[in-house]
Amino acid sequence: MVDYGDVDIVPGYIEDTYEKIERSMNQIFSAGIIPAVCGGDHSITLPILRAASKKYGALSLVHFDAHSDCWDNYFGKKYNHGTTFKRAFEEKLIDPAHSIHVGLRGSVYESTDLSDLSRMGFSVVTMKDFTEIGVAETVKRIQSVAHGSTYVSLDIDGVDPAFAPGTGTPEVGGFSSREMMQLVRGLLDVSLVGFDVVEVSPPYDVSEVTALLASNLIYELSSVLARNQK
Amino acid sequence: MVDYGDVDIVPGYIEDTYEKIERSMNQIFSAGIIPAVCGGDHSITLPILRAASKKYGALSLVHFDAHSDCWDNYFGKKYNHGTTFKRAFEEKLIDPAHSIHVGLRGSVYESTDLSDLSRMGFSVVTMKDFTEIGVAETVKRIQSVAHGSTYVSLDIDGVDPAFAPGTGTPEVGGFSSREMMQLVRGLLDVSLVGFDVVEVSPPYDVSEVTALLASNLIYELSSVLARNQK
Amino acid sequence: MVDYGDVDIVPGYIEDTYEKIERSMNQIFSAGIIPAVCGGDHSITLPILRAASKKYGALSLVHFDAHSDCWDNYFGKKYNHGTTFKRAFEEKLIDPAHSIHVGLRGSVYESTDLSDLSRMGFSVVTMKDFTEIGVAETVKRIQSVAHGSTYVSLDIDGVDPAFAPGTGTPEVGGFSSREMMQLVRGLLDVSLVGFDVVEVSPPYDVSEVTALLASNLIYELSSVLARNQK
Amino acid sequence: MVDYGDVDIVPGYIEDTYEKIERSMNQIFSAGIIPAVCGGDHSITLPILRAASKKYGALSLVHFDAHSDCWDNYFGKKYNHGTTFKRAFEEKLIDPAHSIHVGLRGSVYESTDLSDLSRMGFSVVTMKDFTEIGVAETVKRIQSVAHGSTYVSLDIDGVDPAFAPGTGTPEVGGFSSREMMQLVRGLLDVSLVGFDVVEVSPPYDVSEVTALLASNLIYELSSVLARNQK
Amino acid sequence: MVDYGDVDIVPGYIEDTYEKIERSMNQIFSAGIIPAVCGGDHSITLPILRAASKKYGALSLVHFDAHSDCWDNYFGKKYNHGTTFKRAFEEKLIDPAHSIHVGLRGSVYESTDLSDLSRMGFSVVTMKDFTEIGVAETVKRIQSVAHGSTYVSLDIDGVDPAFAPGTGTPEVGGFSSREMMQLVRGLLDVSLVGFDVVEVSPPYDVSEVTALLASNLIYELSSVLARNQK
Amino acid sequence: MVDYGDVDIVPGYIEDTYEKIERSMNQIFSAGIIPAVCGGDHSITLPILRAASKKYGALSLVHFDAHSDCWDNYFGKKYNHGTTFKRAFEEKLIDPAHSIHVGLRGSVYESTDLSDLSRMGFSVVTMKDFTEIGVAETVKRIQSVAHGSTYVSLDIDGVDPAFAPGTGTPEVGGFSSREMMQLVRGLLDVSLVGFDVVEVSPPYDVSEVTALLASNLIYELSSVLARNQK
Repeated sequence: MVDYGDVDIVPGYIEDTYEKIERSMNQIFSAGIIPAVCGGDHSITLPILRAASKKYGALSLVHFDAHSDCWDNYFGKKYNHGTTFKRAFEEKLIDPAHSIHVGLRGSVYESTDLSDLSRMGFSVVTMKDFTEIGVAETVKRIQSVAHGSTYVSLDIDGVDPAFAPGTGTPEVGGFSSREMMQLVRGLLDVSLVGFDVVEVSPPYDVSEVTALLASNLIYELSSVLARNQK
Repeated sequence: MVDYGDVDIVPGYIEDTYEKIERSMNQIFSAGIIPAVCGGDHSITLPILRAASKKYGALSLVHFDAHSDCWDNYFGKKYNHGTTFKRAFEEKLIDPAHSIHVGLRGSVYESTDLSDLSRMGFSVVTMKDFTEIGVAETVKRIQSVAHGSTYVSLDIDGVDPAFAPGTGTPEVGGFSSREMMQLVRGLLDVSLVGFDVVEVSPPYDVSEVTALLASNLIYELSSVLARNQK
Repeated sequence: MVDYGDVDIVPGYIEDTYEKIERSMNQIFSAGIIPAVCGGDHSITLPILRAASKKYGALSLVHFDAHSDCWDNYFGKKYNHGTTFKRAFEEKLIDPAHSIHVGLRGSVYESTDLSDLSRMGFSVVTMKDFTEIGVAETVKRIQSVAHGSTYVSLDIDGVDPAFAPGTGTPEVGGFSSREMMQLVRGLLDVSLVGFDVVEVSPPYDVSEVTALLASNLIYELSSVLARNQK
Repeated sequence: MVDYGDVDIVPGYIEDTYEKIERSMNQIFSAGIIPAVCGGDHSITLPILRAASKKYGALSLVHFDAHSDCWDNYFGKKYNHGTTFKRAFEEKLIDPAHSIHVGLRGSVYESTDLSDLSRMGFSVVTMKDFTEIGVAETVKRIQSVAHGSTYVSLDIDGVDPAFAPGTGTPEVGGFSSREMMQLVRGLLDVSLVGFDVVEVSPPYDVSEVTALLASNLIYELSSVLARNQK
Repeated sequence: MVDYGDVDIVPGYIEDTYEKIERSMNQIFSAGIIPAVCGGDHSITLPILRAASKKYGALSLVHFDAHSDCWDNYFGKKYNHGTTFKRAFEEKLIDPAHSIHVGLRGSVYESTDLSDLSRMGFSVVTMKDFTEIGVAETVKRIQSVAHGSTYVSLDIDGVDPAFAPGTGTPEVGGFSSREMMQLVRGLLDVSLVGFDVVEVSPPYDVSEVTALLASNLIYELSSVLARNQK
Repeated sequence: MVDYGDVDIVPGYIEDTYEKIERSMNQIFSAGIIPAVCGGDHSITLPILRAASKKYGALSLVHFDAHSDCWDNYFGKKYNHGTTFKRAFEEKLIDPAHSIHVGLRGSVYESTDLSDLSRMGFSVVTMKDFTEIGVAETVKRIQSVAHGSTYVSLDIDGVDPAFAPGTGTPEVGGFSSREMMQLVRGLLDVSLVGFDVVEVSPPYDVSEVTALLASNLIYELSSVLARNQK
């Protein structure tokens, strides 16, 4: 893991920013480095996946989030934090047969949201599923989907707002911090090529609990990585 | 559901306010509308029940709360948010044989609090009970008690202060947001004639997590209602 | 339980403060009183144990905490809130064969932290253990370790920061308030000679939820005490 | 100054509460004690003035506030924190010829608000006046109006929300804390028979700055009193 | 003044958003309506000025702000909240000979920042000037510069962070709320064609004091407008 | 100015910490470097003055603070943040004839506090003095006292809590941020050998306004230094 310096991001020029991130990440992936990226909103994952797939081909994706971020457009636009994985799917950066969305919930979905995911070929564990099947079975499903070079994208709003208030689109009824940590520890033996923890927003945080959780999740993911590489 | 306009409530004149709420709710219930009411403190439920029982007779009550609100008086007064369901019982607005209090806990009870509830004929699931029997069994008990025209009153302090700090008399050791949502979803096939979500107090809230949870619970209750009416 | 007055503590003179606390606690223990002590940081427990062991001999310890506080030194110093139970062990104030640390977790441990505890003879339930075995089994382990005169020390950071943000070294992935209360209620029939609730830090608190939880835990511990003495 | 014990106030029964406060204050004033009263909202000043005038006759009033609290009714009601000094005027508890309102401002006034005050015979220093004439001239005007037995009522919202955010009806553009202290110190040689500091609301406070200011203003008023009595 | 409905703004597409705002504002200005606009960041003022100048020609500008927003580029980009008035100058939307920046301060300026403003022909009252000359003289300078159709743009960060913490680029040492209100009231007889209050950011606010101040400033500006039109 | 690295400070061992700070500062002063030190509490200034006087002899002191920090002892102890300048006086690290305390106020002083300062030979501008004489005259007094090698110590609680809530012993009625900046800018031509800004406490801060002010004051002091050295 390497701190690769600033990428000179400019608010208001999203596709321009994508290019800068992608250029920077290309260097990292091509050098065989496994990056740990901190967001920032979820739009940053698209240029990361573009760079990663250049090195590894279509990736297996493990995606923890309250939202699928698979809309065709968001506010009428093709490129932003609500469309990341739809674009990644279209650009064949990820392989839906080996990709899974975990923690989906909330009242903002179109009636076709879940069926759209199935149609694209993604696996899904909604929060309703999770409440029924629990941590251990969810880990099993993730393990059975993940295959080959795998990228993990963790949106902090997958966690309940009680544990992670510092985020932009909180959804009640999410993971506890302990469940989130168990799920991350469940990635043992998965072949990680990179991961990100995104959507942490300090102004909404209280007593820095969200920042603390996010940094611990990065630590846990790094520990899994260290174990896997032994 | 209809937003019926303001009811011109004046701080410091509680019985006067009761009358205004009751008059307003009479119009709603007599028109066959199923109201979703947002508090305000728990005293508002008494005039709502007065209006509802005029239409439907003695009601079945499902009451989620850390406190029973069944004291004979509170601070020496007969009418306020600590006596709502004792008055409703005396005025025969609710039928104790088909009414249940769920989530009771805390250190503020008289030694006779729980026995008083039994003596009046109410069913009870304390938080201690809930911790032992879990969500599914609690839903079964609610379903077995609720009968005929049913009113649901949800005091946000039934939820743990970690998930709902924005309230006036928080009690630790409450429901998680996920458990609260499961319990509400468990009301499927109950014949709802109205519901309220009360005791949300914005100044005590942090990062608006309580407001977010309360609005989601209203959404969940409305969804149950929609399903039941199909 | 008695409020024994102020102990005139001076920031910056820790060993001097130890002496003052010990002198004050000697009077309490020698009078056969069972003290409920509110911290303050965890360093206060050492002089309390010194006073308690003068009366009762080496004590059985039940310690709820995210950290073992058993380092040999902390910031290069022998006496502070990171070394309390190592000093208590060396001074034979506690009997490791009848002492247990519950809730340990976090990323700050030396690689030998857990083995050090075993070597000294302490029992341990880490948060990882707890997640696997649950409340009931943890209570059983505590009951099987506690023996004779028992002191309970509860560091509020044993609880998750969502439920107790108001503390100085929070660790994510801790107990919920309900789990913490169940564990405390599990001390029934243990022969308590004193207890403390420490590390509550108001400036980091939000909506006073930590203060509320801490005062309820003191209430629960006092209730257990009252039950045990009948 | 004496802490006279609790007055058993019940939310929702304002006239009942008035009687309790008045009974309690009667004892204080009749014993020749000069009370320092902490609110609570501004409605408490009416029963205090009733008790004070029983002892001293119609009082001279020095009133610091963003609002005159002289409406004929508020939310359609005669008795609450918006009508205190209109009722006091009607009941002849205060002598308008020797009474002054200092700090009035804000956008909530009826067009006749200021002319109503003149018609009743009150003196007024609006915040607009104050900005022009400054502290020293304002003190002179207060000194020239105050005469004989004088009661001081200080609503913390007279101070700007930057210095006193913890209040229910904040108005921007108020006194700085230093100006407020200078005005209070300007009461030297006024014959005080009692004073209050009201409308401090902890849930809206930040870092306890409002509480700190309010307690310092009580200290300053008490110091003035001590000086005057020498 | 009219609430003209939403303008469907999309984060990440700034020039696209400019067009939408301009189209919407064109309708308002061409109808002879005087708009009161609430930001949002300071970039919104450029499309407003484009629309206004289409109706009125090059405008006189009165700009209250800690920053001049006259950089040639910001983060390497031509169009955003740091370049608004440089673009407006280049596009001849404003007449520098009749435009003035009031309140400039802070440590972020290039060495040529102030000389750039002079070179372009703008008048300036820095906070250092203001501290020396005071409110009345500042009002005189504004009145002597403003001429013909005048637009007022008020960045809330012109006010000190103690009075307006809820903003994105706070600068210490700003106006008090009372000074800001006096300056706004000093616009009497200026021929206003529109105004905005921008850069209010709720997540950074405390106790809603910034929101309260901003809404009062809009009220004051509207009052000036009403007086001027009589 | 140089960032000299950590000094390994241990809570609870104040005299030990003094030695570490002094050793570190000796290197800085002996190298002719002018340090800008950020606290931490006001006790750190004593070891800094010990090191500075070793290089420059007895220093001229300009001290901005709500409190004189000249008590003989505090909580019964000789060495801590309430006794810094009494010890510095006794150790002849500062020359009282060329030292001045600016901003003193508050209700915590002994009756002899101000006369003690006179007796030791210090100059004083209390906040009461400042309110009467203003910024310009205060600057003159500072300039007339400061002489030769001068150390500036700025306790952030000299500023009013509205502008600097993030501190441990706030006192109402202090400097505005603008006044504080003017006073600092008034140090032009004073021969600075070092300065500190102390008592900033992040947990009590809101929206980071105190941190922002403190960093600006360091910037202003550095600017004065740069001007003076030309």
